Amino acid sequence: MQFGMIGSGSWATALAKILTDNGNTINWWVRNEDTIRYIQKRGHNPHYLGAAYFNQQQLNLDSGIRNIVASSDVLVIAIPAAYVASALEQLDKNALQGKKIVSAVKGMLPAGNQLLNHYLATQYDFPEKDYVALLGPCHAEEVAAEKLSYLTFAGSDIDFTTAISASFRTDYINTVVSTDLTGVQYAAVLKNIYALGAGIAHGLEYGDNFLSVYIANSAREMVDFLRKLTMQEKGAQDDPPDYAASVYLGDLLVTCYSLFSRNRTFGNMIGKGYSVKAAQLELNMVAEGYNASKCITGKNETVGAALPIARAIYEILWEHLPAADGFKKIEGFLQ
Amino acid sequence: MQFGMIGSGSWATALAKILTDNGNTINWWVRNEDTIRYIQKRGHNPHYLGAAYFNQQQLNLDSGIRNIVASSDVLVIAIPAAYVASALEQLDKNALQGKKIVSAVKGMLPAGNQLLNHYLATQYDFPEKDYVALLGPCHAEEVAAEKLSYLTFAGSDIDFTTAISASFRTDYINTVVSTDLTGVQYAAVLKNIYALGAGIAHGLEYGDNFLSVYIANSAREMVDFLRKLTMQEKGAQDDPPDYAASVYLGDLLVTCYSLFSRNRTFGNMIGKGYSVKAAQLELNMVAEGYNASKCITGKNETVGAALPIARAIYEILWEHLPAADGFKKIEGFLQ
Repeated sequence: MQFGMIGSGSWATALAKILTDNGNTINWWVRNEDTIRYIQKRGHNPHYLGAAYFNQQQLNLDSGIRNIVASSDVLVIAIPAAYVASALEQLDKNALQGKKIVSAVKGMLPAGNQLLNHYLATQYDFPEKDYVALLGPCHAEEVAAEKLSYLTFAGSDIDFTTAISASFRTDYINTVVSTDLTGVQYAAVLKNIYALGAGIAHGLEYGDNFLSVYIANSAREMVDFLRKLTMQEKGAQDDPPDYAASVYLGDLLVTCYSLFSRNRTFGNMIGKGYSVKAAQLELNMVAEGYNASKCITGKNETVGAALPIARAIYEILWEHLPAADGFKKIEGFLQ
Repeated sequence: MQFGMIGSGSWATALAKILTDNGNTINWWVRNEDTIRYIQKRGHNPHYLGAAYFNQQQLNLDSGIRNIVASSDVLVIAIPAAYVASALEQLDKNALQGKKIVSAVKGMLPAGNQLLNHYLATQYDFPEKDYVALLGPCHAEEVAAEKLSYLTFAGSDIDFTTAISASFRTDYINTVVSTDLTGVQYAAVLKNIYALGAGIAHGLEYGDNFLSVYIANSAREMVDFLRKLTMQEKGAQDDPPDYAASVYLGDLLVTCYSLFSRNRTFGNMIGKGYSVKAAQLELNMVAEGYNASKCITGKNETVGAALPIARAIYEILWEHLPAADGFKKIEGFLQ
């Protein structure tokens, strides 16, 4: 399998490190020519994960996404959800035919409020069996430090999913395989909302005791949403997913608790009194939980789960509810 | 209801603050006369939670446990599990007759490997309906700082349990009532084992990604144990407890993640290479997870839950398994 990496942010750089450490040679789409020259000269990405060094023999860097896609069998898409559509629009309509896709996109595509596999199916007739979602809990910074982490690979074709997962297994990456393609991706969207809320709580000076109650109740909300969603889409399951697995609860925990989490950082500023706009300008980055709260609020109109925490966070971020008032509401829901 | 506080450690001091802040006058058993004089003169406990100040009019301090018990209706027992039996042995055999007991004991009584209600039933014929278990997630330090926290009260008499919970509700304490008396107490025992293990993992230099996977899988083990225990003791339940509630998952989280946790601190030293004995001497305190790992390993012989993580921690603490080897085993169980 010839991998093509689409993206050059911190998560893409971490995944490039994992694939090359595992002996793969990769094609890597890096949009900026200066960045390509820097990586070729200095052996690491100038903007992200500076501690992750690459062997040049294993990298084929190109600023043209068409070349990268044409010369790859498996495309690893690792760009923010909001930029996926415009990146793929540079390709010919049939450029994805016969390709496999590994999605490392964290979040829903905001335009159609869709997961990437649903977007690909609608726009490109892309078959679900050739799609695998790659999820954490895994902060890129700890990949650079080679701290043992677990990645979950979810897909509807279990053999293909297992084969993909094997390409990412290294001394510091253990892999788990799941068939709950839709559930794990929604879990990843939900956790960003709760992590952003954890940051707000911190900014409002709630303590560790409260945070633990907040996160436990967030886990309950997540499970309620995933159960109802699965029931709607597949009916009753004989063997329902274990929602304490790392890809659900573990990812929620690391995102809520880790100081590396950008959602938590963004939320902290909201809790301290920054406006959404000011926090975005100050941090100069996208906190996925912001769009996620809107996407999930929309999606939940059909799912009908009890999501009072996610709802309050949506109202804080999108409807000008003061953060302290939003959390007063949340206090009343917790048990 | 006249409350009697049995204990003067940090948790007892925090509960004394909550009860008096809520307007109650309390009888307080403080064994050491010097400590009593200090509290009377300076208004706070010299050894624990120095920031928690008391109104002398609300305190009746006494170094004799018999006096305190005789003059109280409701005894709040807040001493380490290992010292409960010897404290109660100072009383006449019928001294507990007609009393109510609120247990703030964290752990099982090591001699008979029993929860306090089971010990009281065997030793004193104490009726379960007059017993309430008081649980967190709630680190005492945040009570002193008046950070909003949630306490869960569990008992078999729902009206009495609700009445007790009302005495502890304040501006900074929200209360939750549960009927799962056995389950919540075992959850509190289990979480100390996993928190001690989280400390070991930290000492071994695992990172945030791994920790989140470890804790999520610990939550799964806890639920498996509680489900099987409930099934054994009560049979199938129409309305099983929600194990994402704060008293189960929340307490696990705060104990694993908070830097206030003594179990985590103790485990960290084990992970860094200290022997159990050296860590105990150095910290000069009891980490409940140490005895808990032995109690649960024994109890699980009849419960039969899948507890590979708890088992490995038991082997590290009690059977000289090197910490790094124990965690290599744990790595293989995680998903």
